[in-house]
Amino acid sequence: MAIKSAFTEMFGLEHPIAQAPMAGVSGGRLAAAVSNAGGLGLVGGGYGDPEWMTPQLSLAAEEARRPWGVGLITWRASHELLDFVLGHRPSAVMLSFGDPAPYAAAIEAAGARLICQVTDLREAEEAAACGADVIVAQGTEAGGHGGGRSTLPLVPAVVDAVAPVPVLAAGGIADGRGLAAALMLGAHGVLLGTRFYASHEALGHPRVKQRLVEATGEQTERTRVFDAARGLTWPAAYTGRALRNAFLRRWTGHEDELRDNQPEQQAFRGAVADGDTETAMVWASEGVDLISGLERAEDLVTQIGAEAEKLLQTAPTRWTH
Amino acid sequence: MAIKSAFTEMFGLEHPIAQAPMAGVSGGRLAAAVSNAGGLGLVGGGYGDPEWMTPQLSLAAEEARRPWGVGLITWRASHELLDFVLGHRPSAVMLSFGDPAPYAAAIEAAGARLICQVTDLREAEEAAACGADVIVAQGTEAGGHGGGRSTLPLVPAVVDAVAPVPVLAAGGIADGRGLAAALMLGAHGVLLGTRFYASHEALGHPRVKQRLVEATGEQTERTRVFDAARGLTWPAAYTGRALRNAFLRRWTGHEDELRDNQPEQQAFRGAVADGDTETAMVWASEGVDLISGLERAEDLVTQIGAEAEKLLQTAPTRWTH
Repeated sequence: MAIKSAFTEMFGLEHPIAQAPMAGVSGGRLAAAVSNAGGLGLVGGGYGDPEWMTPQLSLAAEEARRPWGVGLITWRASHELLDFVLGHRPSAVMLSFGDPAPYAAAIEAAGARLICQVTDLREAEEAAACGADVIVAQGTEAGGHGGGRSTLPLVPAVVDAVAPVPVLAAGGIADGRGLAAALMLGAHGVLLGTRFYASHEALGHPRVKQRLVEATGEQTERTRVFDAARGLTWPAAYTGRALRNAFLRRWTGHEDELRDNQPEQQAFRGAVADGDTETAMVWASEGVDLISGLERAEDLVTQIGAEAEKLLQTAPTRWTH
Repeated sequence: MAIKSAFTEMFGLEHPIAQAPMAGVSGGRLAAAVSNAGGLGLVGGGYGDPEWMTPQLSLAAEEARRPWGVGLITWRASHELLDFVLGHRPSAVMLSFGDPAPYAAAIEAAGARLICQVTDLREAEEAAACGADVIVAQGTEAGGHGGGRSTLPLVPAVVDAVAPVPVLAAGGIADGRGLAAALMLGAHGVLLGTRFYASHEALGHPRVKQRLVEATGEQTERTRVFDAARGLTWPAAYTGRALRNAFLRRWTGHEDELRDNQPEQQAFRGAVADGDTETAMVWASEGVDLISGLERAEDLVTQIGAEAEKLLQTAPTRWTH
């Protein structure tokens, strides 16, 4: 018994669960663990640093016994970076935050599937037009970067707009209830970020992971502070959801000043390295309320899949008569 | 065949669907139509004007053949207003936006059920502590006033926090997919606002209703402009989601100035009366993407109930094997 959908059939998955390619967090070990458990693991290409990516992509390719993929931040991508990534022969490339059209043909030509993450209907239509094999509709409750629409109303609107392209729901989902709900909305699966961040296989400082376990959704907010602290200028449409901490409170409203403040940026890098969660960013979904412990990635895939499957199996007897 | 839950059993409903008590929109005719179709209709008490409420409450009491209720804005309520409302013998009183504790005992003593709408976990715990019979977890994608949490992650967190109190999901839901998804999240039903605003029985200018049919979720945003235009000072936690229009763009960032501008406020009242949707507020959920026409309220209740029921009935065969 397992949940089947157009998404599971496309990649031969046991569970309609993808793991978000979180920059600096989704390394080869996490992606391989998710894929080996029957989900779709994605290495986070982040800002495109080949020195970081080479060993992580090699690890994924080596450890994964099933399809795995790579995610890139579209506005930071280049044809050179894409060629480098495709050289590791991923089964899927996910493009998020920017126009995927310039890269679609190369991905198809390499025999990989194109997954496009979108944050509104305009982006969904662009993704469908350039031939996306899967479209991830990401709501504003997601941890890390994203847009302004909420998952629950966005998903069915995207499903209607891009049918028959399979859609994954992302943003605020952390358990089997969320997966079952996503399927009812017309999605063909889910993409989970923060839930996999709080796993043993995720990269990232142990203190950051522990904060995710302790945090509540109400402690999160969308911000540009942590981009400014890293000297990054993201497109205006995208902010990042993180836990509020002392650094965020100090610099909210002063992002431009922070962007020019080299000593402060250097101190910030030190805090990130040290796992000082009152300064470093802790990207976090509103779904952290549903996260009560660190788990093995494999267990997350199988437990979330099983919980959703049980909800679907028992739906007629539980809710109708 | 019908969907059953703790919420339908509490009120003897045919469908786990409540209609939001929208100020100036949810009159007696709409509430009675929803209740007579097997949902729970709620008259919108709004800012507590007895001259508006008396005929609407009388109409609901006269036309409804099944349980119906009334909703009040808690921070504008008073014991006098509550006594007036309870005099019309509603089966339920819904309190939104403020501390319900001062009013819980009088509602219970009158034999009515207390429904509390909450926008975060703190409010959910307060509502449970004061004996709420039903808790509505309302996400930020809702039309009109609300908070900052999104429906999809908020609902399961509230369900876990207040169990076994039945929870309704609100915000961004406009069809049977949303109802089925809400049940999967652990809710016992849904509360729909904007979807019922776009019904024949709703009060409100025809041009406003037409705008809801044409609008997209991306044209909505949370704002304080329309409160300022009416001289209303809402508690800081609550803004209102409306369609962007010329008036909203003009006054965003100048709300305090607008609050003191009597001529502009008078012109605004005229625009509201005339249904001038480039000035008047059009409260709208992100779920407007899913609304493609005006419907009869009765048809909405039965169609949304039937669509969700079919999704639940077919879930095992559709998604598992």
